[in-house]
Amino acid sequence: MLYITRRERFSSAHKLERNDWSPEKNREFFGACSNPNWHGHNYELFVTIKGGIDPETGFVLNLKGLSKIVKAKVIDKLDHKNINLEVDFMHGKIASTEVLAFEIWHQLVAEVKAEGALLHCVKLVETENNYVEYFGA
Amino acid sequence: MLYITRRERFSSAHKLERNDWSPEKNREFFGACSNPNWHGHNYELFVTIKGGIDPETGFVLNLKGLSKIVKAKVIDKLDHKNINLEVDFMHGKIASTEVLAFEIWHQLVAEVKAEGALLHCVKLVETENNYVEYFGA
Amino acid sequence: MLYITRRERFSSAHKLERNDWSPEKNREFFGACSNPNWHGHNYELFVTIKGGIDPETGFVLNLKGLSKIVKAKVIDKLDHKNINLEVDFMHGKIASTEVLAFEIWHQLVAEVKAEGALLHCVKLVETENNYVEYFGA
Amino acid sequence: MLYITRRERFSSAHKLERNDWSPEKNREFFGACSNPNWHGHNYELFVTIKGGIDPETGFVLNLKGLSKIVKAKVIDKLDHKNINLEVDFMHGKIASTEVLAFEIWHQLVAEVKAEGALLHCVKLVETENNYVEYFGA
Amino acid sequence: MLYITRRERFSSAHKLERNDWSPEKNREFFGACSNPNWHGHNYELFVTIKGGIDPETGFVLNLKGLSKIVKAKVIDKLDHKNINLEVDFMHGKIASTEVLAFEIWHQLVAEVKAEGALLHCVKLVETENNYVEYFGA
Amino acid sequence: MLYITRRERFSSAHKLERNDWSPEKNREFFGACSNPNWHGHNYELFVTIKGGIDPETGFVLNLKGLSKIVKAKVIDKLDHKNINLEVDFMHGKIASTEVLAFEIWHQLVAEVKAEGALLHCVKLVETENNYVEYFGA
Repeated sequence: MLYITRRERFSSAHKLERNDWSPEKNREFFGACSNPNWHGHNYELFVTIKGGIDPETGFVLNLKGLSKIVKAKVIDKLDHKNINLEVDFMHGKIASTEVLAFEIWHQLVAEVKAEGALLHCVKLVETENNYVEYFGA
Repeated sequence: MLYITRRERFSSAHKLERNDWSPEKNREFFGACSNPNWHGHNYELFVTIKGGIDPETGFVLNLKGLSKIVKAKVIDKLDHKNINLEVDFMHGKIASTEVLAFEIWHQLVAEVKAEGALLHCVKLVETENNYVEYFGA
Repeated sequence: MLYITRRERFSSAHKLERNDWSPEKNREFFGACSNPNWHGHNYELFVTIKGGIDPETGFVLNLKGLSKIVKAKVIDKLDHKNINLEVDFMHGKIASTEVLAFEIWHQLVAEVKAEGALLHCVKLVETENNYVEYFGA
Repeated sequence: MLYITRRERFSSAHKLERNDWSPEKNREFFGACSNPNWHGHNYELFVTIKGGIDPETGFVLNLKGLSKIVKAKVIDKLDHKNINLEVDFMHGKIASTEVLAFEIWHQLVAEVKAEGALLHCVKLVETENNYVEYFGA
Repeated sequence: MLYITRRERFSSAHKLERNDWSPEKNREFFGACSNPNWHGHNYELFVTIKGGIDPETGFVLNLKGLSKIVKAKVIDKLDHKNINLEVDFMHGKIASTEVLAFEIWHQLVAEVKAEGALLHCVKLVETENNYVEYFGA
Repeated sequence: MLYITRRERFSSAHKLERNDWSPEKNREFFGACSNPNWHGHNYELFVTIKGGIDPETGFVLNLKGLSKIVKAKVIDKLDHKNINLEVDFMHGKIASTEVLAFEIWHQLVAEVKAEGALLHCVKLVETENNYVEYFGA
């Protein structure tokens, strides 16, 4: 079993907010991240898949295939977009790094399996000082 | 003459757009950066000042003083904010990296001089693949 | 279960030395790291906690709470300090990266639990070429 | 149990190719990586070993010993070399990152054990956008 | 006058060698870099152009135009290629970082001018420990 | 004229202090950096030399020669050392990044000239957030 990781990047706007909370409560709990006029980040996404080496090709999975999946299901939906307003799989959800990593996992897990490998980890880096990892359970 | 550089960071939302252009023309010229719903970045700002070493302190300038200026005049105005909507010195301007670097220079140059040093360069990094430098002329 | 990591930094002096060894033996075993006049590093500390997403907030844990704990129990004690001489939880111990990571874990584990999450990993980076991880067992 | 990681680097030439495939098939499957005239990378290798802290030294393993092993068994064989043509443990194998990481593991595992520690992970970074990890099973 | 920098990357094979020197002399002077079987690097290229801000667009130059030039004239020729054997503008030249940076400058300078800006600097990073800059004179 | 830069690293202890100031005044002016028990950093040193390309070798200067000079005159004196107590060229001087960069320049300038190139810049990075550059005047 080997673990292969592919890094992708996207630049998005978001805010942390609950619609059913007052602006004051949002501000108190989420701080500057609740700014109603948005802020944004350069996100780094590390997608790790696992599998055995195919003796014919020396690959676990052709990374071109993986890149295509990640691009179609995740990057194209998020890059230069507003996470709260424009991303189908985030509708009605809090745009925290945790929830975003969790939902990216669910965007990818079945597609990666269909390619013949297993999704192992989604790591989402929001700033140089914080990131989230999700392993599917 | 020595050159001292201090790095600061801010995370903001913006879009590239001219109000007097149609959405189509904005889209055509500015591409994904013109998304009306905003996107954002983790910006890195490198402020370089120059001056002689003060023989009494071994410093050109006390960096605490420089940090305070950069924080008050630039970072507090930009971090977790919308560059197009909320930043006084960007009102009515195109929120490109070039214009932002140019305007940050003008936020800082007089204040740095009042501290006894000279502003040498404002370097603004938008993504790992592009940045702008302005030297004041 | 999600894993959230917060990076912090501190700059400290230390040396590797056993008091009950001769200077020669310390020099022979610990090499340049045993320099009696100290040397130092910019350490990077990555604290990883794990837990479920709170559906109300989208957070596993409010990172502000985690930061406060890490700052009070670890960073304030280590930053711009001498690890061998000034850090209460390192008294009488060898100031290796291994021991320091192990002790930082024990500084944090109960406090993180009291915040409602579980400490998963302490990763301590001494230079760009070496780091230590401790997972609590 | 602590985990200690040492980073090493090497710069090598390689190509992805099966001798028993036609140039066209190699090109189709492996893309630009099959260029018959070679290309190359700055590889980063992270070797992680695990073990308990020796209470006498504060070390799991003397990193000098580990560095010597990694240098002799891996770096000296790969650095400024052609992976397909010149590396004994890669003869007759596809020079993919996966296979290379797998074979580096087998170069190291017995030697690390003889030093009194256990090899935990070999992580091989080919570019800033992709890396492979192998944990021995 | 503002300075805008775009980073690009390429992975190539090369060797340092003079055909009119004996293998021994090449080895003695160029060391491991003269390995006849090649080695390679992940190069990073930083292209800096300068110009005034166009008040209509907020841009000095549309980076998409610059990227297209750099891709066509430099990256496509070098990436996943052998610098000594396959790159037209390096034929008969020593494949040192210095010569490569100098020749990349001459690939770009006229094309950048035709786009309405001035080439200011070509910075070529060979490893994390060494790079070359050329400013055109 | 090309500019070639070599990066080196050293890990040292230091403090910012004037002997003729009281502990209180040192503390007030230099803050945590004046801790009498020292602190330390992983410094990064970038040495830039300039010169024409030697048409015979493709080099401005053999980097091995430059590395030997930098190692002997700077790194061996600073690495795993106490800058205030053990570095000959810093005796009686304030151990600020500015003064250290200035003195490193004077350690190198004549030796680089004797090798047939010109020292252009000494850049000294103390933390990821601050660095100093000196160009000799």
